[in-house]
Amino acid sequence: HSSFSIPLGQGWGPRLAGGSRWEGNSDLPCLYLFVCIFRYSFRCMFCPLNSLKSDEAASGPKQGPTFQDGQRRVDYVLTYHVQKPQSVRRKTSRFADYRILRSLRRSLSTMRSGGTPPSKEDPEIAAHKHRLDYHEDDKRFRQTEFEDNLREVGLELEKDEGNKIPGIGFLKIHAPWNVLCREAEFMKLKMPTKKRINLFIHKVTAPLHPKVEPNRPQNKYFLLKRTRCTKAKYTMGITSLLGNGVYTAAYPLHDVSILPHISIPMRMLLSFLSCRKYFGEKIGLYFAWLGVYTQMLIPAAIVGVIVFLYGCATVDNDIPSMEICDPRNNITMCPLCDRACSYWKLKTACGTARASHLFDNPATVFFSIFMALWATMFMEHWKRRQMRLNYIWDLTGFEEEEDHHRAEYEIQVMQKTLKKQDMSPKVVKGFLLSFPLQIGVTFAVVFGVILYRISIRAALHMSSNPTARSNIRATVKGTAAVINLVIIIIMDEVYGAVARWLTLLEVPKTDKSFEERLIIKTFVLKFANAFSPIVYLAFFRGRMVGRPGDYVYVIGSYRMEECAHAGCLMELCIQLCITMLGKQLIQNNLFEIGIPKIKKLIRRRKSDMDSQQQEDYNMTLERHEKDHFLGPFVGLSPEYMEMIIQFGMVTLFVASFPLAPLFALLNNIIEIRLDAKKFVTEVRRPIAARAKDIGIWYNLLRGLSKVAVIVNAFVISFTSDFIPRLVYQYMYSPDGSMHGFVNHTLSYFNVSDFQPGTAPLQPMHLGYEVQICRYKDYRETLWSNTPYDLSKEFWAILACRLAFVIVFQNVVMLMSDFVDWLIPDIPKDISLQIHKEKILMVELFMKEEEGKKLLRDNHTNQSPFQPRSRPASHTPSKC
Amino acid sequence: HSSFSIPLGQGWGPRLAGGSRWEGNSDLPCLYLFVCIFRYSFRCMFCPLNSLKSDEAASGPKQGPTFQDGQRRVDYVLTYHVQKPQSVRRKTSRFADYRILRSLRRSLSTMRSGGTPPSKEDPEIAAHKHRLDYHEDDKRFRQTEFEDNLREVGLELEKDEGNKIPGIGFLKIHAPWNVLCREAEFMKLKMPTKKRINLFIHKVTAPLHPKVEPNRPQNKYFLLKRTRCTKAKYTMGITSLLGNGVYTAAYPLHDVSILPHISIPMRMLLSFLSCRKYFGEKIGLYFAWLGVYTQMLIPAAIVGVIVFLYGCATVDNDIPSMEICDPRNNITMCPLCDRACSYWKLKTACGTARASHLFDNPATVFFSIFMALWATMFMEHWKRRQMRLNYIWDLTGFEEEEDHHRAEYEIQVMQKTLKKQDMSPKVVKGFLLSFPLQIGVTFAVVFGVILYRISIRAALHMSSNPTARSNIRATVKGTAAVINLVIIIIMDEVYGAVARWLTLLEVPKTDKSFEERLIIKTFVLKFANAFSPIVYLAFFRGRMVGRPGDYVYVIGSYRMEECAHAGCLMELCIQLCITMLGKQLIQNNLFEIGIPKIKKLIRRRKSDMDSQQQEDYNMTLERHEKDHFLGPFVGLSPEYMEMIIQFGMVTLFVASFPLAPLFALLNNIIEIRLDAKKFVTEVRRPIAARAKDIGIWYNLLRGLSKVAVIVNAFVISFTSDFIPRLVYQYMYSPDGSMHGFVNHTLSYFNVSDFQPGTAPLQPMHLGYEVQICRYKDYRETLWSNTPYDLSKEFWAILACRLAFVIVFQNVVMLMSDFVDWLIPDIPKDISLQIHKEKILMVELFMKEEEGKKLLRDNHTNQSPFQPRSRPASHTPSKC
Repeated sequence: HSSFSIPLGQGWGPRLAGGSRWEGNSDLPCLYLFVCIFRYSFRCMFCPLNSLKSDEAASGPKQGPTFQDGQRRVDYVLTYHVQKPQSVRRKTSRFADYRILRSLRRSLSTMRSGGTPPSKEDPEIAAHKHRLDYHEDDKRFRQTEFEDNLREVGLELEKDEGNKIPGIGFLKIHAPWNVLCREAEFMKLKMPTKKRINLFIHKVTAPLHPKVEPNRPQNKYFLLKRTRCTKAKYTMGITSLLGNGVYTAAYPLHDVSILPHISIPMRMLLSFLSCRKYFGEKIGLYFAWLGVYTQMLIPAAIVGVIVFLYGCATVDNDIPSMEICDPRNNITMCPLCDRACSYWKLKTACGTARASHLFDNPATVFFSIFMALWATMFMEHWKRRQMRLNYIWDLTGFEEEEDHHRAEYEIQVMQKTLKKQDMSPKVVKGFLLSFPLQIGVTFAVVFGVILYRISIRAALHMSSNPTARSNIRATVKGTAAVINLVIIIIMDEVYGAVARWLTLLEVPKTDKSFEERLIIKTFVLKFANAFSPIVYLAFFRGRMVGRPGDYVYVIGSYRMEECAHAGCLMELCIQLCITMLGKQLIQNNLFEIGIPKIKKLIRRRKSDMDSQQQEDYNMTLERHEKDHFLGPFVGLSPEYMEMIIQFGMVTLFVASFPLAPLFALLNNIIEIRLDAKKFVTEVRRPIAARAKDIGIWYNLLRGLSKVAVIVNAFVISFTSDFIPRLVYQYMYSPDGSMHGFVNHTLSYFNVSDFQPGTAPLQPMHLGYEVQICRYKDYRETLWSNTPYDLSKEFWAILACRLAFVIVFQNVVMLMSDFVDWLIPDIPKDISLQIHKEKILMVELFMKEEEGKKLLRDNHTNQSPFQPRSRPASHTPSKC
Repeated sequence: HSSFSIPLGQGWGPRLAGGSRWEGNSDLPCLYLFVCIFRYSFRCMFCPLNSLKSDEAASGPKQGPTFQDGQRRVDYVLTYHVQKPQSVRRKTSRFADYRILRSLRRSLSTMRSGGTPPSKEDPEIAAHKHRLDYHEDDKRFRQTEFEDNLREVGLELEKDEGNKIPGIGFLKIHAPWNVLCREAEFMKLKMPTKKRINLFIHKVTAPLHPKVEPNRPQNKYFLLKRTRCTKAKYTMGITSLLGNGVYTAAYPLHDVSILPHISIPMRMLLSFLSCRKYFGEKIGLYFAWLGVYTQMLIPAAIVGVIVFLYGCATVDNDIPSMEICDPRNNITMCPLCDRACSYWKLKTACGTARASHLFDNPATVFFSIFMALWATMFMEHWKRRQMRLNYIWDLTGFEEEEDHHRAEYEIQVMQKTLKKQDMSPKVVKGFLLSFPLQIGVTFAVVFGVILYRISIRAALHMSSNPTARSNIRATVKGTAAVINLVIIIIMDEVYGAVARWLTLLEVPKTDKSFEERLIIKTFVLKFANAFSPIVYLAFFRGRMVGRPGDYVYVIGSYRMEECAHAGCLMELCIQLCITMLGKQLIQNNLFEIGIPKIKKLIRRRKSDMDSQQQEDYNMTLERHEKDHFLGPFVGLSPEYMEMIIQFGMVTLFVASFPLAPLFALLNNIIEIRLDAKKFVTEVRRPIAARAKDIGIWYNLLRGLSKVAVIVNAFVISFTSDFIPRLVYQYMYSPDGSMHGFVNHTLSYFNVSDFQPGTAPLQPMHLGYEVQICRYKDYRETLWSNTPYDLSKEFWAILACRLAFVIVFQNVVMLMSDFVDWLIPDIPKDISLQIHKEKILMVELFMKEEEGKKLLRDNHTNQSPFQPRSRPASHTPSKC
């Protein structure tokens, strides 16, 4: 049952011994833990869900889980192992080397601090160094010291050792009012302007009620409302104790009062303003962001559907597909593979051609411009929303705390100073090993799928079953996409682990930099994983195939894949569609719903109780014990990552799949509800962290929307037939219409030019002897001086494609910058509000000034030597 | 002598009557003027140049200009007209309509304020409405009221009416200590964190010296050091009075103490840290920016010179120019103009070809990538420097003040409410009129120069003088570039006026938006003006010329210009060189040094005194009178504009002129000195404005460096021969060398295909009959099916050019983004410093907390009812 609750949540393996700072300066870790507790205790109080109960003081027992006295509320819980001798023996071998390390570190820190309290235990340590139960002793010693420190800071503790859950002890912590007040005092140092105005208002109106009884709720409330916690994470002290195994978990409790409403957690969490009260700003921002994103997807989905419908409506008027389907155009195509395949009639590609038109029409170009601007609008919209939330949540003056060093980093530094050895070679080695490995694996996967397709297709062609043959294309496409999907999902998990391993190798200095580096690595790996088959289909498939008689071969005799006549766009669509639908369905349903259910089931099986017994047992459990059974909160990174990959699908290849925003929208509507349910019922209540913005995710989104512009430009100009059509219509068409376009795109091949051994085995398959077959490429005709050379049309169209890319990219970038510039980052009403508050402050100052003048005039001769007054000294008297 | 001193300085025509806010709330304008005065009085005090004098209190008369008593220092001066009856009559007609307007406005404001003090004069106004000297009366009434208000706020005034300078009255203002203290008090509301720490330190150490005598300088110093003025501009009150003509000018005085050191103003101003003390942060930032820019130009200039030298060194190994110069390659070129010109030998273009190589070699490509990254580095470097300055100058907590409405805007709103009429049609009309006009003028200018060149060339060709003929090219290029330069300089002034007029039409709401809009408009116009000839040369010249036998004609029979064989790059270079050198020489020497000297001379002539008399007269003048003779400070916009156009020259077309950074560097070294001298000796001391950044200029610079990437990509791929050479070498060259490149770029023309009447009049000019002549283009050969059509090579090279643009743009953008991401915006040491200060604050809080606890324990029973203490109430006692 040993579970680690870690701020970021990427269960980062066994943690080495930390706590060096804690030993050196015993006040600090307590303070940090205490800050967390403080935050919870009054967050809950101001949770709108709680405000139903009007009289807070009287509702002691109903307020939530309390101490045994039924009065003091449990604000925070630490859990630890209750010693079982047999388990110690198993563990000691694993911890043996750490022990030596720790004692070394301890002696170092003792040297530094010059004989601080912890040093008094050193002789004892030296004496018991090789006893097997030393580790547990050390643990308990640390526990005692830590708990003493907590009590010293003013917190109240209660122990609950293994009554119902064997082997687990609970340390319940309560933060009394006076401690909270002192904390509030401390926090006032960083009060933002808005708060200061409140303070002024209070001071100006203070003379009207000069003495208020210290325990009147509204006054408390006032005091608490005026203050905010700013410590973003619990650091060194408690994290290293957790990592050390001294405590196994640390979590605040879920609010019992909302659990009856558990059937509507979505509604509650959708109103992210209250969500923030319960979970803190960081998770609040996630839901706000998800809300804005989902909201913004609605217009995109609508326009996408319209574009798709436009494609459907015009498919019958599309001259190129009409020409392909027209049986009178009796065009014989060259075989698609060596020997096994034979010549084929172009009109058999009729279906694909018609389907391609759905996604490859002029409306798509409009739509990809639209989506590029949409992405910019979304970013701008989010910036404004974030600013508004910052204002509402009072974060305008809040600055991110400087992060504390990670325990691992300190240990590394320690090791370095002891061993005089640099860690960087290991890191570099890790890099050198892993990134080529990753690239290799990704390419291998893509290549494997290509090979699969080629070989399956050849095999199917060779089979004599006519039904199998007619379904060749569909079968190959479908199975390949599904295989890709499965590989993507499996590799996703693998890459997640690789990224974590790589980041651990780097030993980042702080938790924040650890998180950022991990996110960047995971993003790069997962992104490459999800998009490499799509990129292959969009930009590489059918490009380097060579031409009949001079095909490009890979690994022996495998010919590179060709595209169907209407381009690879159709296959790209299928791949995108299956990836999006499949990935989201599997990840949402299987991973997020299914697996937790299965785990629960297994746990239930293990405990040898039937469901009724289990129910009864659950009823007897207290809140802190119930929460212990929930999974640890694993951070927001997986949620964000999933969404950002989706954002990539929606923006990057939107030119080839206008329905992507619709799919994303449908998924997100489910996703918000699932996430909300998960956070409320399936994981322990997360540490409420403060955050002003969504951090590195914003940069990633911004980068994606920039990359999207160029990717879409290339999809339109190179993957779709948009440019060749335009060029044909305006440069080559005899009557300015699209008639003759299909013929124009096909080059001639004389079957006598086949390389030996590559000619089809069944040349009479179509029922007549073929002299000249056609293939899709722009090459010189048979009767030119240089047959099979790339033709002038090829270069002209290539130039037009490239020109389109330049124009598209720069026009869209310019428009995006314009939209960016047009929409102010701070909403008008918020900036007005801030301005008003400034004016208010000036007026308040004026009044203050007048009052002071009066006071000075009155007392100028009475007390020439007044005691020094302190700016912050008026609040404690009210506590 | 009536001169307007205006914050921005674009002498914006006659100002309409303002002051409505002043009348409604008579305290406010005084406060604002007073803020300015306050800032000066202690800026001067802390000017490091002043710190030589140790005892400030004793140095009363030496401290600078004082009141008649020789004690109170003159902090600020207002000037006004002393009434001369004849001049009033002249003016009244001009002001007649304003008067009516003002009375209307006054009645409105009276209605609003419901009978505030100003309303008492209304009956009088009604009675005297048509008296001609009403205007002067009104002025004097306002003066009196304003001065009364100033005295009420606590300022001390002294009048000095026209003793030495007839017709001008001076109002000298002194801000006494107690007023400054109160202001300091007011400003403390916005103290940044750093200051608050100082406060804490002071409080902690305070018990050691509980009572300090209020006038001890170090204490004063402490108080003043801890506070800062934050009002950025003097607003409504004084500006509208100035605009109204109630006062003619308002300025702080130059510091007499630095005037003896006038010979070294550069050195003083180069150390911009002290410059900021004297001029304020806004001008300090300008010099800092100019310093960073000039500093960054050094590496760019060095690399540029190396690139140029590389070109010089390799010119003899350049195969294409060797081929052109080789007399054995006897290539006959087609005539460059109709009828008058004849066939010519390619080897006559030898010089141009060799010269072109200096600027058109592979090193140029490297250099333009380098310069794109350089621009990014510069922006990053400046961001960091700005951040550092913000920290050093203590602006980290400073927020830009919300700007007050401009007088003109208020009047427009007034008129609208009176006339119920929208102003926007006028604005729209202004836009519709002016921008096409501007574009028209720019195009007309460019086109005019083109026509000039074409006609001059034809004329020279027709002349029989052989020397004239041989110098044709050089003459045409040189004169055309000079004409362009002259036109650019003239139009620069015109466009400045147009931009101001357009901005006035728009009636921006605040001074800040006025400034921004004016800057944007001026920038667009001046930029288009400076760069349109260059853009024409780089991208349009020689593109749409047609081909022999099918030339493109404009306006009757003028053929479009062709480029010399080696591309237009050479002419682009000459144009850039002349524009940069000429513009800077003329603007620096003529405008910035010459014209002020001439003005002085004229003024001296007018005053009918010889130089000795003038000298004597000057000696008798006091500081405030001397300063009155100096020109008003016209803002930083012209200085920034000049630099930003230069930045454009340095980055935009750097691919064609690697010496541009060197020229810019040389210019800037002079520029900094000239600007410094100007600000210290030639204009009145500017209003010290606070600023955190260089505002809109940063955005313009950023925009320019983005545009530079794409412009350079196009210059390299389309203007230079870089891509055709590469393509020839790798696709067409038989032996992989450049041999045969010249031949490859030339197409064939059969002279029998000339359009009737366009064949040369002297076909035998070269001494032999020409059957086939050559021209520079990629077209089908004479013996192909479609002669004169664009050839496959053309399209292939075009595709390569475009591909290069895409690759170049995206690679450079990616690298720029990477550099941007790599360099942190906040320098490491600054962020460490800020972090340290935070830790210090926490520790201070802890100590404070302990002290408080002790205090509480001691006094808990003695005084249960303590008087409320105010956070800000301890400072006044020290004043």
